[in-house]
Amino acid sequence: MAKDSYLVGLIGSGIGPSLSPALHEREAGRQGLRYLYRLIDIDRLGVRPEAVGDLLGAARVLGFDGLNITHPCKQLVIEHLDALAPQAEALGAVNTVVFDDTGRATGHNTDVTGFAASFARGLPDAPLERIVQLGAGGAGAAVAHATLTLGAGRITVVDALPERAAALAGQLERHFGDGRADHATPDRLPGLLTTADGVVHATPTGMAAHPGLPLPAGLLHPGLWIAEVVYRPLETELLRTARALGCATLDGGGMAVFQAADAFRLFTGREPDAVRMLADITDLTGALGAPK
Amino acid sequence: MAKDSYLVGLIGSGIGPSLSPALHEREAGRQGLRYLYRLIDIDRLGVRPEAVGDLLGAARVLGFDGLNITHPCKQLVIEHLDALAPQAEALGAVNTVVFDDTGRATGHNTDVTGFAASFARGLPDAPLERIVQLGAGGAGAAVAHATLTLGAGRITVVDALPERAAALAGQLERHFGDGRADHATPDRLPGLLTTADGVVHATPTGMAAHPGLPLPAGLLHPGLWIAEVVYRPLETELLRTARALGCATLDGGGMAVFQAADAFRLFTGREPDAVRMLADITDLTGALGAPK
Repeated sequence: MAKDSYLVGLIGSGIGPSLSPALHEREAGRQGLRYLYRLIDIDRLGVRPEAVGDLLGAARVLGFDGLNITHPCKQLVIEHLDALAPQAEALGAVNTVVFDDTGRATGHNTDVTGFAASFARGLPDAPLERIVQLGAGGAGAAVAHATLTLGAGRITVVDALPERAAALAGQLERHFGDGRADHATPDRLPGLLTTADGVVHATPTGMAAHPGLPLPAGLLHPGLWIAEVVYRPLETELLRTARALGCATLDGGGMAVFQAADAFRLFTGREPDAVRMLADITDLTGALGAPK
Repeated sequence: MAKDSYLVGLIGSGIGPSLSPALHEREAGRQGLRYLYRLIDIDRLGVRPEAVGDLLGAARVLGFDGLNITHPCKQLVIEHLDALAPQAEALGAVNTVVFDDTGRATGHNTDVTGFAASFARGLPDAPLERIVQLGAGGAGAAVAHATLTLGAGRITVVDALPERAAALAGQLERHFGDGRADHATPDRLPGLLTTADGVVHATPTGMAAHPGLPLPAGLLHPGLWIAEVVYRPLETELLRTARALGCATLDGGGMAVFQAADAFRLFTGREPDAVRMLADITDLTGALGAPK
């Protein structure tokens, strides 16, 4: 009898508003699966991020099929795993853990594969020779790995914290080769954007709690494509401004959906319908994503 | 928004063939709930029965709504609970744990309430003045509490282990009052059954792995009602023999269903449809309960 019952969850901090339960459970419902996606919020439990190892062990014993892992546990979880998929090992961060029948735990990173899938679908013909990326945090690291894996020539990482930008650029060069990444401070954006093919935005600016633009509007021009990581709201001020100029754009919903779809495939071995899931996230962010 | 998603499980030994997942999940499905009932088998995990406390703690942390508990953990679990319902406290055994919103764990015993409900429904007019009960193990203790709660005049506990029969009779008298229980060895059954109103059968005899009759067929007579605890198969040799004599009978499926229905109500706060669940168990024992 094929397995048709799945128990999964998300470990992280402040995850109450996560759309992952709805994204996973809606797709599972359409596939006729009994599928429960539970939130395991370390804030609510009153435990430190280091407790991720204990939580992982508890989930394994109680028969969870897998877990998503988010901030601030994506690095901390690694030492508790039995194996890492290549993209997770390269990035040094895990957002998906799969338990096999023997309880062996393998870490994956579907932020990387999800952004790559979303980009390939949404901006299939975008030139990738020169990319400027805003943001060198965890999301920035994942999407930089994704765009370099897709064949980007060179990424310039720009962050308000210069040492963080330098660290990410150095890590990217070590993994993808000399000359594939460098870093810059925000004051150099005017020159960088003149010659860039596109911009990947991976800072929180534009989220409901952080409204606004992550760069001066005057720096945008129709020769740039713009790929957004923020997905709540789907239509950020950056995307609105870029679209008005005629830029090709990619919203953050695709990454959110494809990372969930990739995790769903890892958890169940079944193929999710990402197109239906894209409709779900439009529906969910419309219903739930508005500023409160 | 009303809660419509439930995560529950069963902790015990050798529980692979349990019908509880199917009984709970079928009823939940008809009520439109997302409901997962997981088996947490200590044999499969390779842990001792005393690990029930750790498993309970893990389930609490990971957001389980409740647990069923079975052999050999029904007593061991008690020290790990925050509160006990009266029937569980009286019996000294817990088969159902409910976590509230704060993680507080309360123990219940729906073997007691389930057998009482099944008996009241299936043998509503049965005289209860003199009951002979075969079996003084865990199931025997639960059903003796149930029949005395229903108003039985006196129960005589018969067990192949005299000290176990004596211990249960003593516990019943302390709880329900002097004269409500006594005990006897199997050789006294001929005399006891001559004057008894009915027999409650609570030994494993008649299960697929233990076929046969728990007492000599010649001791049965049409003046007795017979209540069975075994439910796999539903039609035991005892019931078949008793029905052929014209005895009123109660099969073990009712107890199995009502204990599950009572647990479902405790877990969800929703009213299960026990009549539909009775049809399920007929279906499930027909499909799965046959000797392998």
